[in-house]
Amino acid sequence: MGLKEERILSQYVYRGKILNVRLDSVKLPDGTTGTREVVEFSEAVAVVALTDNNEVLLVRQYRYPVGRELLEIPAGKMEKGEQPEECARRELAEETGYMAANMRPLLRIYSTPGFTSEKMHLFFASGLTRGNQNLDEGEFVELVKIPLVNALKMIATGEICDAKSIIGLLTVKQMIGTS
Amino acid sequence: MGLKEERILSQYVYRGKILNVRLDSVKLPDGTTGTREVVEFSEAVAVVALTDNNEVLLVRQYRYPVGRELLEIPAGKMEKGEQPEECARRELAEETGYMAANMRPLLRIYSTPGFTSEKMHLFFASGLTRGNQNLDEGEFVELVKIPLVNALKMIATGEICDAKSIIGLLTVKQMIGTS
Repeated sequence: MGLKEERILSQYVYRGKILNVRLDSVKLPDGTTGTREVVEFSEAVAVVALTDNNEVLLVRQYRYPVGRELLEIPAGKMEKGEQPEECARRELAEETGYMAANMRPLLRIYSTPGFTSEKMHLFFASGLTRGNQNLDEGEFVELVKIPLVNALKMIATGEICDAKSIIGLLTVKQMIGTS
Repeated sequence: MGLKEERILSQYVYRGKILNVRLDSVKLPDGTTGTREVVEFSEAVAVVALTDNNEVLLVRQYRYPVGRELLEIPAGKMEKGEQPEECARRELAEETGYMAANMRPLLRIYSTPGFTSEKMHLFFASGLTRGNQNLDEGEFVELVKIPLVNALKMIATGEICDAKSIIGLLTVKQMIGTS
């Protein structure tokens, strides 16, 4: 018996600005029928940007869905026709004002594949030069520059608790520690 | 200027089986009004379970929202009135059949706080003893037991690409490597 679930019927129950929700009927591996709720969300990128002094660029913003401010690595949704690296450079520039001489792909991850299609491309940016922050309308973001070692401690203490940020920071730590 | 966004109006646009979607009007930090789409999802748990031989228990399942099979650490939603550790023990037993003498909290993370409230409690389980898998209806999961070192390599190769699993495995690696 395979594990695949085949779509029988698909219906949009919500079409919104940043996400859509589908309610699908599926044929389960044992031949029975089930339903699956799927939040459609764009592909996205996130960037661990490290200065020549081993400081990482973080952004503090109020995350309405969780009702609190979070400290995260810069990130954002890919626009139509945009490539991941292009998006990474754009989001880094918009949220922090920095440009990167080097932008290296780290990992591709699914945020929470039990209910959403969201896929995220993680990058490592270095060779940074400073420009001006240029936020989207309705986006309020504070730039926070801290030593990478401190950011890693903030994962352990729970001060950094956003999944993509934790993965990006731990991966860069491994990379720097071993190369 | 603070970063907080204050709710003005809140409306459910979808109420489903595993998730609800709200469309809220909010007052932004600059005094203007914006909208926020929020996917309400239960708190959840995920468990890195390590055998005495340093093998980790993974589960392979078809993830309909991303259209493919994924290899993940055991995980699931907290039921009403359930505590995180209790849920971790239940999900571990249901999905793998194993019971753990020791269940230690690792981290609490937000999966993707730009659009969902989902919060996940990660645990480290050890002192494992084997029982029988006991899946929920409509759940099809294959148990895969592999050495932790191999699982860590599978993060680098992209074979393990689920966010909570990557965070759990990297955190346990750090913990074991340093304690």
